[in-house]
Amino acid sequence: MRRQNDASQLLSMTLPQRACELMLDLRHRRPRIHALTNTAAQMFTANLLLAAGAIPSLTIAPEEVEAFTGRSSALLVNLGTLDNDRRLAFPKAICAAKNFHRPWVLDPVFVDASPTRLKAARSLLSEHPDVLRCNIHEFDSFFPGTEPINQRIVSFAEKHHIVVALTGAVDTLSDGTRTINLANGHPMMALTTAMGCAGTALIAAFTALSDDRLEAAAAALLILGITGEIAGEITDKKSEGPGSFPARFLDTLYTLQSDDILKRANIS
Amino acid sequence: MRRQNDASQLLSMTLPQRACELMLDLRHRRPRIHALTNTAAQMFTANLLLAAGAIPSLTIAPEEVEAFTGRSSALLVNLGTLDNDRRLAFPKAICAAKNFHRPWVLDPVFVDASPTRLKAARSLLSEHPDVLRCNIHEFDSFFPGTEPINQRIVSFAEKHHIVVALTGAVDTLSDGTRTINLANGHPMMALTTAMGCAGTALIAAFTALSDDRLEAAAAALLILGITGEIAGEITDKKSEGPGSFPARFLDTLYTLQSDDILKRANIS
Amino acid sequence: MRRQNDASQLLSMTLPQRACELMLDLRHRRPRIHALTNTAAQMFTANLLLAAGAIPSLTIAPEEVEAFTGRSSALLVNLGTLDNDRRLAFPKAICAAKNFHRPWVLDPVFVDASPTRLKAARSLLSEHPDVLRCNIHEFDSFFPGTEPINQRIVSFAEKHHIVVALTGAVDTLSDGTRTINLANGHPMMALTTAMGCAGTALIAAFTALSDDRLEAAAAALLILGITGEIAGEITDKKSEGPGSFPARFLDTLYTLQSDDILKRANIS
Repeated sequence: MRRQNDASQLLSMTLPQRACELMLDLRHRRPRIHALTNTAAQMFTANLLLAAGAIPSLTIAPEEVEAFTGRSSALLVNLGTLDNDRRLAFPKAICAAKNFHRPWVLDPVFVDASPTRLKAARSLLSEHPDVLRCNIHEFDSFFPGTEPINQRIVSFAEKHHIVVALTGAVDTLSDGTRTINLANGHPMMALTTAMGCAGTALIAAFTALSDDRLEAAAAALLILGITGEIAGEITDKKSEGPGSFPARFLDTLYTLQSDDILKRANIS
Repeated sequence: MRRQNDASQLLSMTLPQRACELMLDLRHRRPRIHALTNTAAQMFTANLLLAAGAIPSLTIAPEEVEAFTGRSSALLVNLGTLDNDRRLAFPKAICAAKNFHRPWVLDPVFVDASPTRLKAARSLLSEHPDVLRCNIHEFDSFFPGTEPINQRIVSFAEKHHIVVALTGAVDTLSDGTRTINLANGHPMMALTTAMGCAGTALIAAFTALSDDRLEAAAAALLILGITGEIAGEITDKKSEGPGSFPARFLDTLYTLQSDDILKRANIS
Repeated sequence: MRRQNDASQLLSMTLPQRACELMLDLRHRRPRIHALTNTAAQMFTANLLLAAGAIPSLTIAPEEVEAFTGRSSALLVNLGTLDNDRRLAFPKAICAAKNFHRPWVLDPVFVDASPTRLKAARSLLSEHPDVLRCNIHEFDSFFPGTEPINQRIVSFAEKHHIVVALTGAVDTLSDGTRTINLANGHPMMALTTAMGCAGTALIAAFTALSDDRLEAAAAALLILGITGEIAGEITDKKSEGPGSFPARFLDTLYTLQSDDILKRANIS
C-alpha cells in the first residue's frame, strides 16, 4: 500500500468539517438528483435522498431522461436492472449530463456476476463518470490483479481520471493522488437491500455541491457510515433487527447533527 | 377567486360525514383497484390500498390490463414510469374501464419535467378521466395562465367535465360547479416518496364507491390529510422521522375512526 | 380427503425439528437465491431473504439470467410482472436451472385473473418446477373441479411430479404421496403486499438445502407462519398495524429461535 501522502492527510483532517458543511448545504439547497437505478432500489433511494434533503426523480424512459437530467444537479447510473429501456436510457442521460456539465456517478452493481453487465459497465466507464462506487468483487472484475487492493484503486483512479469509492467494512476512496479510508458503519447495513445503491445516490447528491469529487464522495460515505452506526445502536438497544433498521437509518439521517459527524468520524 | 357558492358550501358541510361513510364502506366492500403506477410507487400504493380496505392489483403487461381492469372496480393511471409496456397498457386499460363502466383516475406525475410526458398526458386527458390529481407545477403544464390558480382549476374542470384535485399544503378540488379546499396534512408526507401516487390510488378506490366523483376525491384526500396529521403527531412525539413515518401512516389509516375525521376536518 | 397416511404422519412429526435445522443451515451456508419476481415484490423479497440468511439477486434482463441462475443455489419464478423482459427471461433462467441442477419454484400470482397469464403459467408448469406455490383461486385455474381441494392437490402433485404448496389461513402441501397441513400465521400477513411472493422466495431458499422438496417447502412455510404469528403478537401488543408489521416480521425472522418453532408448530 502506498504511504499516506500529505494531500491525503490534509483531506483526512478537513473531511469531518467539510462533511458537516455539505450536509447542511444539501438540506438548504435541496438539489434535484436524477437516479437511474434498479427497480428494487428505487423506493429506498428516493426516500434516502428526501431524508438527506435532496429531491429525487427516477424515470427511466429513454425519451425522457435527457429532460430529467437537464433539470437535475447530478445523475446516478446504477446497473442493477439492465433492461432494454435502461440500456437505451443510460447513454442518453450521460450525454445530457455532459452537455449540461452535471457530475454523474456509476454504480456497476453485480458486474462480477454477468459478462454482459461487465461489458456494459466498461462501455459506460469509458464515458468518464466522476465517481465509480463499487464493492471489492465488482472492482476486481474491472481491474483484476495480485497487487494489494489499495494500490490497484489508486492506479485505476489515476488511469481513468476518476474517483474510486470502494465500499465494504472499511471504505477506501482515491482520486489517484489522495487516498482515504473510512471505518464507520454497522453490520445491519449489509442486511438492507439497496443500501449500497441508495448510498451511491447520496454520493451523486454531494458531487452536485462540491467540485472536489473525492471530498464529495468521502463526505457522503462518512455520513452514511455514521448514520448506520447510530441507527444500528438504536436498533440494537430496542432489540430490533433488519426489518426496523431502514426506518431507523432514514430517521437518523434526517436529523443527523454536525456533532455526530465530528465526534464519530473514523478516518485514516 | 370565485365566491363560494351554495353547492360548494353544502359539500363542505356534508363531506366529513360522507368521508366516514365511504371509509367504512371501503372496509366493508373491499373493492378491487387496478393500479397502473410507477415502479417506485407500487409497493407503498398496494400497502396503502390494503390498509384502507381495498384489494390492489398492479400488473402493467399490455396483454393483461384489460382482464385486470375488467375485474376491478376502478382504475388508476399514473405516468411516473413511462416505459414501453405502460405506453401500450394505458390505452388498453382505459378502453376496458370505459367498456366496463369503471371510473378511472389520472395522475400525471412530473408532467412539468418532460415534453414527452406532457404530450402523453394530454392524449390520456382527452380520454376523459373521472379525476385528475396533480400538484400545482403539473397543473400549470396543462393550463398555464395568469389568473388565480383556483379560477383556472374551475375553468379546467368545467371545460373537461372532470374533477380536478390539486394537492399541496392545501388541497383544492373542483368539478367546475363546486370547489372545496382541504387543509389537513403534515409536512412529513412530502418526505415520503410515492405518497401522492398512493393517494391517487385511494381516490380511485373511493370513486368506486360514489358516483359523485368530487365527493369521492375529496373524501379520499380528507382521509389522507387527517391520517398524515395523526401519523405526524405520533412521529413527532416519538422523535422519529421520515423513515418511520410511512409505517405510522399505514397503521393510522388502518384504524382511523369516524371521530378522527369529524373532529379534525379542516375544510373551506 | 385422503386419509392421513404413515408417510404424512412421519413428516408431521419430524417437520418442526427439520425446520429448525434448515433455518440454522440457511444462516450458516448463506446460499445465493436468484428471484425473478414482480417489481412490487422485489424489495421485500430481497430483505426477507437477507433476514433469513440467504443472499438475493433479482435481475430480470434476459441476457443475464443464465449467469445469475448459474451462480445461485435455487431459482424463483414469479409471474406477477409479465413484461417482455421477463417473458424472455423465464425460459432462459429455467433452462439454466436445469443445466446446473438447481431447484426452481413457480409462483403463478393472479393466474386466475388473466387468460394470458394462465397460458404462460401452464407452459412454465410443463418445465417441471420443483414446487408450485399458489393460493386456492390460482390453483383452481390450473385444476378446476368439484372434488375436495385437498384431493385435487394430491392428484395434481402426483400427476405433475411436483410439490404443491397451497397457502391460505391453513397451508396445505403435498407431493402426491405425503400431505401436510400448517395452521400457523396471522391475519396481518394478508395485509402486507408481496408477503406470498417473498414467502415463495424462502421456499426456493430451502429447496437449496434439502433434496426432499416437500420437507423444504413445508419448513419454509412453517417458519413464515410462526414468524407472522410472533410479529402479529408484537404488532397487536404495541397497537400497531399493517404499516409496522413488515418490519416486525423481518425483525422476528432474523432472530427466530428453534424453541419458537418447536413450541408453536401447528401441524396436522
